[in-house]
Amino acid sequence: MLSKIIKPVYAHCDLPCGIYETDTMSHAAATCLRMIEKIEEINPDDFSAESRNAFVRAVQIKEQHARIVKEQLATLWMDYFKPEHVERFPELHELVWQSAKQASQVKQHVSRESCEKLIEDVAKVAEVFAATKR
Amino acid sequence: MLSKIIKPVYAHCDLPCGIYETDTMSHAAATCLRMIEKIEEINPDDFSAESRNAFVRAVQIKEQHARIVKEQLATLWMDYFKPEHVERFPELHELVWQSAKQASQVKQHVSRESCEKLIEDVAKVAEVFAATKR
Amino acid sequence: MLSKIIKPVYAHCDLPCGIYETDTMSHAAATCLRMIEKIEEINPDDFSAESRNAFVRAVQIKEQHARIVKEQLATLWMDYFKPEHVERFPELHELVWQSAKQASQVKQHVSRESCEKLIEDVAKVAEVFAATKR
Amino acid sequence: MLSKIIKPVYAHCDLPCGIYETDTMSHAAATCLRMIEKIEEINPDDFSAESRNAFVRAVQIKEQHARIVKEQLATLWMDYFKPEHVERFPELHELVWQSAKQASQVKQHVSRESCEKLIEDVAKVAEVFAATKR
Amino acid sequence: MLSKIIKPVYAHCDLPCGIYETDTMSHAAATCLRMIEKIEEINPDDFSAESRNAFVRAVQIKEQHARIVKEQLATLWMDYFKPEHVERFPELHELVWQSAKQASQVKQHVSRESCEKLIEDVAKVAEVFAATKR
Amino acid sequence: MLSKIIKPVYAHCDLPCGIYETDTMSHAAATCLRMIEKIEEINPDDFSAESRNAFVRAVQIKEQHARIVKEQLATLWMDYFKPEHVERFPELHELVWQSAKQASQVKQHVSRESCEKLIEDVAKVAEVFAATKR
Repeated sequence: MLSKIIKPVYAHCDLPCGIYETDTMSHAAATCLRMIEKIEEINPDDFSAESRNAFVRAVQIKEQHARIVKEQLATLWMDYFKPEHVERFPELHELVWQSAKQASQVKQHVSRESCEKLIEDVAKVAEVFAATKR
Repeated sequence: MLSKIIKPVYAHCDLPCGIYETDTMSHAAATCLRMIEKIEEINPDDFSAESRNAFVRAVQIKEQHARIVKEQLATLWMDYFKPEHVERFPELHELVWQSAKQASQVKQHVSRESCEKLIEDVAKVAEVFAATKR
Repeated sequence: MLSKIIKPVYAHCDLPCGIYETDTMSHAAATCLRMIEKIEEINPDDFSAESRNAFVRAVQIKEQHARIVKEQLATLWMDYFKPEHVERFPELHELVWQSAKQASQVKQHVSRESCEKLIEDVAKVAEVFAATKR
Repeated sequence: MLSKIIKPVYAHCDLPCGIYETDTMSHAAATCLRMIEKIEEINPDDFSAESRNAFVRAVQIKEQHARIVKEQLATLWMDYFKPEHVERFPELHELVWQSAKQASQVKQHVSRESCEKLIEDVAKVAEVFAATKR
Repeated sequence: MLSKIIKPVYAHCDLPCGIYETDTMSHAAATCLRMIEKIEEINPDDFSAESRNAFVRAVQIKEQHARIVKEQLATLWMDYFKPEHVERFPELHELVWQSAKQASQVKQHVSRESCEKLIEDVAKVAEVFAATKR
Repeated sequence: MLSKIIKPVYAHCDLPCGIYETDTMSHAAATCLRMIEKIEEINPDDFSAESRNAFVRAVQIKEQHARIVKEQLATLWMDYFKPEHVERFPELHELVWQSAKQASQVKQHVSRESCEKLIEDVAKVAEVFAATKR
């Protein structure tokens, strides 16, 4: 069962160990959207401590996962992608760059649209990644 | 493509956001084994700075990924698994506990066998996790 | 009771170095309750920047110390407790597990009751720990 | 160009490597003041999710940079400054201590005055540092 | 002596929450000495991967715990101690400063003597701390 | 005096706060080279615990500062540089990318040449950064 799971590789070190993946990044982008939903579930007229606690926590977790997206993008770009990949996918630099800037948008706003755009961007990077594996 | 990847969920927060996964744990266990291979590739009679640098880095990365396995196990056990899961899988506590202790073995030794046992243990936890999702 | 618990042992590594303690966990649980008091001291009708700054900081520090409780519980459970302890205290797995889930409750709510329950749970784990030392 | 920049050294390790600087500390203090400005730009009557997100983030970044100031002060004081410096600048201990306490003030309040005082304090430490380099 | 020192107070935040302690610092200093013992147990003629793994890990854990001592000293000094304490214990600044410098010595060497000196220094800080609590 | 120091700005957050700098990156690259010197000062025939402790620590600090270079490069590239900068300096993506890959080389080897190349690369990024400020 494990062998099926570890095919998509893992983005983490520059030993280099040759193990990279795009799961973490995708899960983190999905979590940002989930936080928007959590924020939307909070009654905007409720300023009880309970409600404010929920708001602060949702912002923090959105912040943290948008940061994870940026870190994973940096690792894939700096450690995994090689000159031959850039030759084959000349838009790669721009794609990663725009995705990272989109992650900052997700931090700066409470916007379902921003998160959905991030999920799309990250999926495009994951597609390029998958293509280099074939 | 992404939709297939993000089905297995992500282990990370106790908001709770309902997003959990076992990929990170599995990749980290696989990385520990990869570090053993890296250490085995080092000539044991070569004490050049270059070779010693490689050794220290491999130990550190093994340490770091065995730690990730333990953190992910803790998150799944503490945040994801619920009483109904324990009722259905009464061996769950012991399974997670032994897996964590195996991760410590991986830190303490340079042993291919220890790492393979960890990969198996982690796969069992992932199987139980997958079963609770069906 | 606490004063009896604090024997100089420290929960921190899987070298293993044999130094474990339950102080950090107990202090962290106490800090969570202190944060609830800090939040209660804030005037709920005061939305000045000063007051909101205090609120955000109290939530963050509660979050951080509930996380410390969970980390310490994980370390004690995974590194310190051995099969002979589980044999002697068969409720150990459940006790640690429930305590961790209680720490999540403390994060999710602004509740004096939740914090007091956490302090009790953590004290029970500390008691078992102390008993294994005798 | 670089050679001009790296003359002021870098505060970071106790190898010791002999590289210390006060830039990071100064930038971090300046960032705290910038956060106050960001908070002042937020409409106090606007409790939209967008506005609350901005508030929480500004508090967090202020918190983080006041912490950086404290960490850098600790590093300079503990690792860089030597007995001969204290002999030459007998007020050094008090100066660093008061600066650290001022950084705590910056965390605890939303106060332009507190931040300006911190910037001044940090500049005094940087001046002593620069004097020891001449 | 240590047993007298351990009163339940915790060094950790500048909310301020009023909860401070010297346990963590004392345990961390003790751990450094334990690492020296672990290093001494390693056969100096054994350069197997197993033995080298043990050496690297012991150095890392010594490094980490000497860092914890320095962080705890910084927290106590910057957050807990007040002007009235310095007035009552005029040697306080020097005592904390020398203890921190001793922690750096512990990092830089593999020396039982250095660690024992650190334990003594830390105990003196803990004694002053305890005196301010009476 | 401070005003002279804080002109070069600081790379750290995506609030965005508008404060960016290249000092940290330059200092970190210089520290990597310093670690090579420290390693070269170690007698290669000395396998005493003291000497091995020094080696492990130097590798760790090299590792840590090469990581700081990569993080700072990521922050500048993702947060500071805007489309107009890329238009004016079309080589920017490649320049940052190659610099990051050079930082990985610095981690993977004990090589004065690699570190000097990193210092040059980082200086080029700093030059582009400075040019965008004029």
